[in-house]
Amino acid sequence: MEALVLRQNQGHVARLVLNSPANYNALSQEMIAALSAAFTQIAGDDTVRAVILAAHGKAFCAGHDLRQMQAARSADDGGRAAYADLFSSCARMMQMIPALPQPVIAEVQGIATAAGCQLVASCDLAVAAEGLRFGVNGVNIGLFCSTPMVALSRAIPAKAAFEMLTTGDFILSDRALQLGLLNRVLPADQLSDGTMEMAQQIASKLPEAVRMGKRAFYEQLRQGLDAAYQTGGDAICANMMLPDTDEGITAFLEKRPPRWAGH
Amino acid sequence: MEALVLRQNQGHVARLVLNSPANYNALSQEMIAALSAAFTQIAGDDTVRAVILAAHGKAFCAGHDLRQMQAARSADDGGRAAYADLFSSCARMMQMIPALPQPVIAEVQGIATAAGCQLVASCDLAVAAEGLRFGVNGVNIGLFCSTPMVALSRAIPAKAAFEMLTTGDFILSDRALQLGLLNRVLPADQLSDGTMEMAQQIASKLPEAVRMGKRAFYEQLRQGLDAAYQTGGDAICANMMLPDTDEGITAFLEKRPPRWAGH
Amino acid sequence: MEALVLRQNQGHVARLVLNSPANYNALSQEMIAALSAAFTQIAGDDTVRAVILAAHGKAFCAGHDLRQMQAARSADDGGRAAYADLFSSCARMMQMIPALPQPVIAEVQGIATAAGCQLVASCDLAVAAEGLRFGVNGVNIGLFCSTPMVALSRAIPAKAAFEMLTTGDFILSDRALQLGLLNRVLPADQLSDGTMEMAQQIASKLPEAVRMGKRAFYEQLRQGLDAAYQTGGDAICANMMLPDTDEGITAFLEKRPPRWAGH
Repeated sequence: MEALVLRQNQGHVARLVLNSPANYNALSQEMIAALSAAFTQIAGDDTVRAVILAAHGKAFCAGHDLRQMQAARSADDGGRAAYADLFSSCARMMQMIPALPQPVIAEVQGIATAAGCQLVASCDLAVAAEGLRFGVNGVNIGLFCSTPMVALSRAIPAKAAFEMLTTGDFILSDRALQLGLLNRVLPADQLSDGTMEMAQQIASKLPEAVRMGKRAFYEQLRQGLDAAYQTGGDAICANMMLPDTDEGITAFLEKRPPRWAGH
Repeated sequence: MEALVLRQNQGHVARLVLNSPANYNALSQEMIAALSAAFTQIAGDDTVRAVILAAHGKAFCAGHDLRQMQAARSADDGGRAAYADLFSSCARMMQMIPALPQPVIAEVQGIATAAGCQLVASCDLAVAAEGLRFGVNGVNIGLFCSTPMVALSRAIPAKAAFEMLTTGDFILSDRALQLGLLNRVLPADQLSDGTMEMAQQIASKLPEAVRMGKRAFYEQLRQGLDAAYQTGGDAICANMMLPDTDEGITAFLEKRPPRWAGH
Repeated sequence: MEALVLRQNQGHVARLVLNSPANYNALSQEMIAALSAAFTQIAGDDTVRAVILAAHGKAFCAGHDLRQMQAARSADDGGRAAYADLFSSCARMMQMIPALPQPVIAEVQGIATAAGCQLVASCDLAVAAEGLRFGVNGVNIGLFCSTPMVALSRAIPAKAAFEMLTTGDFILSDRALQLGLLNRVLPADQLSDGTMEMAQQIASKLPEAVRMGKRAFYEQLRQGLDAAYQTGGDAICANMMLPDTDEGITAFLEKRPPRWAGH
């Protein structure tokens, strides 16, 4: 049996690939567990400086595993405990992404719907092929995307998110870029190379600086201005004390490339 | 005497129409009371699944009733109590819109200024005719739009809102769409049909799912990520337990339309 | 020795000019002190109704003074105390801008990087010449822009800010306008006149109304909806009690220009 999530390393970039094309990479309990395990492994791996989250098949991810969810209805409680467990496992997995030390880039092909769109929104960065469809369309089958909306409504303006959630309509790659859900849109045949290029660019930076910065980014985002400056100030002061940062600034002033340990 | 707010029902859509074209549908105390009453009625009406807020005349709404406000200055306190009452009544009315169980779509024709622009920003969704002007231009007559800015600054980026508030300049429909104040811009002669189509699309969804989702949307919007996932998770778990959602998912898996009670 | 910050008055507009072109207007301790002093002076100057922050030379501002920062490493603590002092002085200076009674417009020429980009993001409004580059590119030399990100991530969508911070890539004026970092983009030869025009437009409004409005704007921005309406309601009620606002509304109703004291 093939793994649900494949991991490929290229230099300091870990590329995770959702590998369940037969069910459009549905976020089954097993897929959530596999992704969570992959993230846990990467969190403790100092050789990894950037992460790509890609997928095999016709869809990036089509959301939860509806067959598995329906099967849970036969339990004595009609599935209530199973659903609570499923959605909290999934929310924990989604929150692992901003909590990961390394930046995570979604590499989106095919289509991304419901919790699949949530996965894109939860990544720090997202690159997609041209002309893709993005939707939080559970409302079409009677299941409002109330968990995907948490990530989506933090990535795009409120009225745009509300429209997608209540109409079930898709938006295309260009609109997703304009709204803030995507960072870049590329021709399909350049998607993997272009995303890897972005990941390698991030991986070429001083890893400890990026880690400090990413941690402070999400901490300050919802704070008041004064508390946010305290968070950001603590991070940049600690960053200044790194020997490699001393070297980086010195090299810049001397107009030469930095000599960073381990680079 | 004709009603200040007309209500037309089309299927499960309630279309409210501001009906005071002589004063550009000014938000007088009477108009605020009439809108509040209409919203209260709809909140308790299970047959309504989506709401349109439209208007008669050359303006969607031109803000508060300045003549009525000036008349209040003759009171012993110079109008202080009347203004406190007016702006708190108006703020309560505006907050009824996100609190309403059903999605509310602004159908904007003519022009929307000051508290009229606030009304557009307060609706869950907004559709407007091409080439309309939107402004929070009270500053031009010495009255900064400090209450409209509450809704506006939650719909569009901060610098764009600040510019409209301090310069008094208008933005046109296309810019309003780009900034997030509008969902769709239509040719004037397709405005009513296009807005009704969006409303009917929302009304075709499972009403209880939409209600649960809308309630969770605004609750989670300002919460931290963890609390927001708790809110969204509770909503989607409750949604899963609805018999009609069971049927909706089953129908989807069986590739047939759902047979929903009451649909 | 020439002043680090020049002040030019034109009517009720104060134009501050960063005047250290030799080091690209770096935010040295001296420049931070000079800007802070200029803001303090303006905060107490009732004749000033709008502020422009412009710059001399090839750059608007290229961030902190790296030579000065590196020199601090020779201290017994390796610079730790100096950095804490520098970044908290800088954060206090940045926060003086939204706290200033008058609107502040950045007039951006050349390039704005790192804390220079933070300065643009911190201004209430920003106008820039066509084709400029904006970046928070400290990551390129091992110093993540953890303080600039506080202002930047409050001006543009999260994913766009995260990309600039982790890739070190620049965005151009047009993209900065689309994202919300800028209000207007002008041909280089119209930059100063266009910015002054916007400032004079704001200065032509009732100053006390603008002050009340600006104060309420930032106070309500991060509050919940109900508290925000309390803040906005208090501001607009106080605004209504100004005699000049009475005159402004009366003049509007009588279709004549207002006769405002001191205008």
